[in-house]
Amino acid sequence: MHAVDVIRKTRDGLMLSESEIHFLVEGAARRTFSDAQLAAWLMAALLRGLSPVELHQLTAAMRASGEVFDPSSLGRMAVDKHSTGGVGDKTSFLVAPIAAAAGLVVPMISGRALGHTGGTLDKIESIPGYRTQLSLTEMRKVLEKCGASIVGQTENLVPADRVLYALRDHTGTVESPDLICASIMSKKLAAGLNALVLDVKTGSGAFFKKREDALHLAALMVETGERAGTRTVALLTNMDQPLGRMAGNWIEIQESVELLRGQRHPLNEDLRELSLQLAGWMLHLGGKAETPEAGYERAEHLLVSGEAWRFFEAMVKAHGGDALVLEDPAKNHRPKYRKEFVADRDGWLTEMDCLLVGFAVQRLGAGRSAPGEPVEPEAGIEMHAKLGSRVVRGQSLCTLFAKDEALFEEQEQLLRRAIVIGLEPCPPPELIHAVVTKDNASQYRREPQSKRE
Amino acid sequence: MHAVDVIRKTRDGLMLSESEIHFLVEGAARRTFSDAQLAAWLMAALLRGLSPVELHQLTAAMRASGEVFDPSSLGRMAVDKHSTGGVGDKTSFLVAPIAAAAGLVVPMISGRALGHTGGTLDKIESIPGYRTQLSLTEMRKVLEKCGASIVGQTENLVPADRVLYALRDHTGTVESPDLICASIMSKKLAAGLNALVLDVKTGSGAFFKKREDALHLAALMVETGERAGTRTVALLTNMDQPLGRMAGNWIEIQESVELLRGQRHPLNEDLRELSLQLAGWMLHLGGKAETPEAGYERAEHLLVSGEAWRFFEAMVKAHGGDALVLEDPAKNHRPKYRKEFVADRDGWLTEMDCLLVGFAVQRLGAGRSAPGEPVEPEAGIEMHAKLGSRVVRGQSLCTLFAKDEALFEEQEQLLRRAIVIGLEPCPPPELIHAVVTKDNASQYRREPQSKRE
Repeated sequence: MHAVDVIRKTRDGLMLSESEIHFLVEGAARRTFSDAQLAAWLMAALLRGLSPVELHQLTAAMRASGEVFDPSSLGRMAVDKHSTGGVGDKTSFLVAPIAAAAGLVVPMISGRALGHTGGTLDKIESIPGYRTQLSLTEMRKVLEKCGASIVGQTENLVPADRVLYALRDHTGTVESPDLICASIMSKKLAAGLNALVLDVKTGSGAFFKKREDALHLAALMVETGERAGTRTVALLTNMDQPLGRMAGNWIEIQESVELLRGQRHPLNEDLRELSLQLAGWMLHLGGKAETPEAGYERAEHLLVSGEAWRFFEAMVKAHGGDALVLEDPAKNHRPKYRKEFVADRDGWLTEMDCLLVGFAVQRLGAGRSAPGEPVEPEAGIEMHAKLGSRVVRGQSLCTLFAKDEALFEEQEQLLRRAIVIGLEPCPPPELIHAVVTKDNASQYRREPQSKRE
Repeated sequence: MHAVDVIRKTRDGLMLSESEIHFLVEGAARRTFSDAQLAAWLMAALLRGLSPVELHQLTAAMRASGEVFDPSSLGRMAVDKHSTGGVGDKTSFLVAPIAAAAGLVVPMISGRALGHTGGTLDKIESIPGYRTQLSLTEMRKVLEKCGASIVGQTENLVPADRVLYALRDHTGTVESPDLICASIMSKKLAAGLNALVLDVKTGSGAFFKKREDALHLAALMVETGERAGTRTVALLTNMDQPLGRMAGNWIEIQESVELLRGQRHPLNEDLRELSLQLAGWMLHLGGKAETPEAGYERAEHLLVSGEAWRFFEAMVKAHGGDALVLEDPAKNHRPKYRKEFVADRDGWLTEMDCLLVGFAVQRLGAGRSAPGEPVEPEAGIEMHAKLGSRVVRGQSLCTLFAKDEALFEEQEQLLRRAIVIGLEPCPPPELIHAVVTKDNASQYRREPQSKRE
């Protein structure tokens, strides 16, 4: 078998066999395909599309390219939630302890901030002492003890994805639903999950802005997960504005802890609602509730009762984190500089370019523009108004936090472009647009353009 | 400007600007684009196609990526002939001295054998002492003295093509008419030609087997040449069988020298005719004949009179070659082993898979399967019958030459598969299928699939 023949087949819209896909993925993981060959194949796959069978086999081969986690000996169903990335998205810190409190295990292998989106790892590492780089053996011990573990990817988990992901970024091959699906699902399936709930974002701050593109990706992931034997659903959710009040690192932990400890706020009801919906599905698919609605009720009970908070606290301690700082998280937010961003007219907050808001958060120091850059735990933005809010001239729309005053001006300009104050009242956006399950996925999936057997 | 943005534009079917194309080509030549980025762009260009303007600018930028030859001070029009590659194609050894004898200069920068096609450089290097690696200054001196110089590409000529060509081979991005056109034309235009005659092969032994594909490539090259200010025509010619009698290295020199010295043979009238047609166009476009027909007549006169032979001999000497061996070239063909391949039935030679014949020639030692491999000067095949010939069982269809007897068996099997003896008489194939000029090129060129401004 030759690399060039595999590339040619995909280029010409022909189906790869399972052994050809295996050869390709091993070629990526073991570096027997050159970077140039992998990049050419990635571009061909992006432009030609993969068939559902190819996508399933690609995902399975990538998953099998390195070590995998087997949670079966833990005696509990393993579930997880994964989001395609947004601004202020901190549902992980709520759903993981809720699911753990319900008797499930959550081996949540997470990623870092890149571009306009935040990273779960960067956020949780803002808790002093919290270690995210655990071995699979260490993660197993944490799961045994406290049900949930939010960790980083190990070096040996899905090495084929590590290679392909690094290539895609600078070869213009990121924007392929097939390749995105294989990348996400291979990593999630390598955690040995029984069930997976996907939060696929759509809207101005999402990777796929158009709803039909996001639905297509959701359908691909649901079908790929189900084919691999993992119960999978996807919620298509709104990302036209940051989720909740906070976007940054420590301030997102602060907001999560406040909710876990029973402090509600009118500006983060969206975060609470979405977290309970996601957790409801996790409990349902994990066998802890007959229906997602029953799962939602149980999740809300676990949140309100403080059970989820106790599981979160235990998880932080098990990872070496300083749980004391969580006692009064607002007090422990000590940004060097803060700046109010005020409304320049009366009206209603009618529109937000959430991509620009995400870039403002990133450039205040909370994110990174290239892998490996450090992030600033204290940086970020606190929203004081959300889409649909009545605002008056001079009121603060949000507070910016940074360790360098010089960073404010450019970000204020970004926010001025991003935030539209209209003269007519408008309703807040719908939070959950659709639920994609194995039963309806095929109606949302588009066929590849030109695929021949 | 970022590499990834250039890749994305081509990927999405958008037109690159001239400065983006320049950035890309410089990125290839100076290695500021990674191999992966170049490969991704090549695949996107193959699948999306380039517009005629992009192709013109790409060719011009590639040409300008290194040193160029300026023949203007030689005081004669510079012309060349280039073939897209075939089996037994030795017209260069005839047209170059004919054109030189007509008062033109022919800076013929040629290539080597690869795969099933032979290489002009390998063939002429079978003349003992002939040096093909001349600097441009050395080539200029040869041209001043004897009008024609058949040489290899210098290190600094079109470095962008060197990088891209090496990548295309193993990334499945060879089969793009646009990329083939840019590669050929950038190198030809770097020789500073006033006129160029292209011999675009079609048929079983050609790179593009289908006539419409070959016509499309011919049209692209004619338009690209004319846009760059070089008078360009393309002859679409048949490659369903080896051209002439011989396919190999030294034996092709032998056959050429015999023709140059006035020895005609019924089995290489196709070679003589095509050479005169090509030379006729060279003389016409080079201003030495009012019409291609008048050019043909003058070319035939220069061939028959022995003038062309004298120019060939002078060129060989100027390159350090031993002209004595050309006195009786057949005597100087001393293969270690020879083997007759005989007809297994009576009939007519009705079909030939010329690709397989080319591979047989290569594997007898005359060609190479990877760049850099040595070739065997004495190896090859001499045809004793051509398409349309009446043959009888037991007669030799061709003679195989090699330095290792063990090579014959596999090649005989290839030839048995390649050569079809039918029971009905059939005419020989048409030699020249079409002539593509700037006036009719647009009718043969297909539009790129999906190109937006």
